[in-house]
Amino acid sequence: MLNTQVIKQSSPVEVTFDLKAYLSQQQDLVEAALERSITVVYPEKLYESMRYSLLAGGKRLCPILCLVSCELVGGTVEMVMPTACALEMVHTFSLIHDDLPTMDNDDYRRGKLTNHKVYGENVALLAGDALLAYAFEFIAVHTQGVPAHRIVQLIAKLGHTVAATGLVGGQVVDLQSEGLQNIDIETLNFIHTHKTGVLLETSVLSGAMLAGADNEVLQKLSRYGAYIGLAFQIADDVLDVTGTQEELGKTPGKDQKAQKVTYPSLWGIEESKIKAKQLVEQAKAELSCFEEKAIPLMAIADFIIARTN
Amino acid sequence: MLNTQVIKQSSPVEVTFDLKAYLSQQQDLVEAALERSITVVYPEKLYESMRYSLLAGGKRLCPILCLVSCELVGGTVEMVMPTACALEMVHTFSLIHDDLPTMDNDDYRRGKLTNHKVYGENVALLAGDALLAYAFEFIAVHTQGVPAHRIVQLIAKLGHTVAATGLVGGQVVDLQSEGLQNIDIETLNFIHTHKTGVLLETSVLSGAMLAGADNEVLQKLSRYGAYIGLAFQIADDVLDVTGTQEELGKTPGKDQKAQKVTYPSLWGIEESKIKAKQLVEQAKAELSCFEEKAIPLMAIADFIIARTN
Repeated sequence: MLNTQVIKQSSPVEVTFDLKAYLSQQQDLVEAALERSITVVYPEKLYESMRYSLLAGGKRLCPILCLVSCELVGGTVEMVMPTACALEMVHTFSLIHDDLPTMDNDDYRRGKLTNHKVYGENVALLAGDALLAYAFEFIAVHTQGVPAHRIVQLIAKLGHTVAATGLVGGQVVDLQSEGLQNIDIETLNFIHTHKTGVLLETSVLSGAMLAGADNEVLQKLSRYGAYIGLAFQIADDVLDVTGTQEELGKTPGKDQKAQKVTYPSLWGIEESKIKAKQLVEQAKAELSCFEEKAIPLMAIADFIIARTN
Repeated sequence: MLNTQVIKQSSPVEVTFDLKAYLSQQQDLVEAALERSITVVYPEKLYESMRYSLLAGGKRLCPILCLVSCELVGGTVEMVMPTACALEMVHTFSLIHDDLPTMDNDDYRRGKLTNHKVYGENVALLAGDALLAYAFEFIAVHTQGVPAHRIVQLIAKLGHTVAATGLVGGQVVDLQSEGLQNIDIETLNFIHTHKTGVLLETSVLSGAMLAGADNEVLQKLSRYGAYIGLAFQIADDVLDVTGTQEELGKTPGKDQKAQKVTYPSLWGIEESKIKAKQLVEQAKAELSCFEEKAIPLMAIADFIIARTN
């Protein structure tokens, strides 16, 4: 993981930025808000199952990107925190469903048993459903200081991000591609821009949308999000080959075992790393106009490919 | 099924109302809008799976209640149709997931093979997810002529209706109760007010909310919805005992086979019918202040318990 790093900008100023401390501070804010977001009531098993996966740690990259992009364009935490939490609820919903036996059939996630291993398949499926629906409710009920028409816009974007046009579409193509050896790069890109990219992109966009950023800014952030999204997935594929169970918190070598076509299987490890690095540079280039204010997002872009889990 | 009937109101006027023709006309409107709501694009199998269940017929009670309550308080079709479609998407999502092998494991629904029997378990699960997310997007993108703050309110209500506080909570308690013989009436009511009642209630409410009804009106419609929701479930339980596969479009006798506690198993068939009738009368009493304008909702309340499927 990156620790203290020197961010080189187009300006001659070099700034020391402690990303680890910054991420840790943002994570604490997010964890506290997520902790408050769900109270256990009857039927307890359902709420416990929702909390089990929602509060299982993880990088909290989606909510952090959302918070940081809101701050970048002058928004407040009150405006953005419900959406930041909702993004993590959506992310968690997708993980719970992807892990189910009928899907990827995973036993471990974030270093813990997967939801269905603890609560059973039916409750896990329903906990995922509940988190998805609650995400929309949570934004609609708790967002403060944002004009209602922007909340409606954001909800449209979030729906699009999850539905057949987004996460779900990516997962279907991923499932259809399993075991096939003739998957081309277009299909692989479709899977990952939809499964991973689109949620990261929406996370970055949503914070700025809520804060009322103009279209030009939104387009830059959208491209930044798309670039880091793809870089993230390439890094993930590489880690599946090079990482350990301890580092990853989930079983490594799964792609190879499932005979999945991945970026490393198409390009090799070294070429994959180079492509990921290029994407991160492209992402950072989108932010140059924000100067110093973009330092956190630039550091996060670097972190995307430097991480070990 | 009711055909032409005489609605008795508190006023001395008796009005002849052709419910069958009215429902058929509303259904045609809804079917046309649902047909337009999803276009098949890549990955085709997912969109086909969504359309398979969404366009499988059915009573369209949720969207019709939504349209009728909007009209009752002076709203337009443009205001309400996207929400009417979204309610049917949510209803269809819940049916697809409830039918999955890990849940109720049903082979038939609306007279056709269930979604997972045709498209496989994983695609069916994902088609349900996609319909749920798309429902929120559809409202946010397509609703016209309604102030944004009301759309936000509606989305909050719909999220609450589906999440652990609604449909999903009801389904979890239903699953937990399976095979148990000591289920009391409170638990049975919890299951059904959450699994069925809450969606019908929200359907009635949402049309009037979008049209800007005041709180007093919303409360009356909310109670109307809750009463017919429970009556609907009692009638459903009775039909499961007395109906045929041909009438129901699904396997009858399932509750008894699964040793499920139902209203007829607690109260007997006759007593269940009496209670359902009482609930329908209570529902209709809530509407007396609307006089003639309430005739369609009154007729629908009668239809709820007179139907044969």
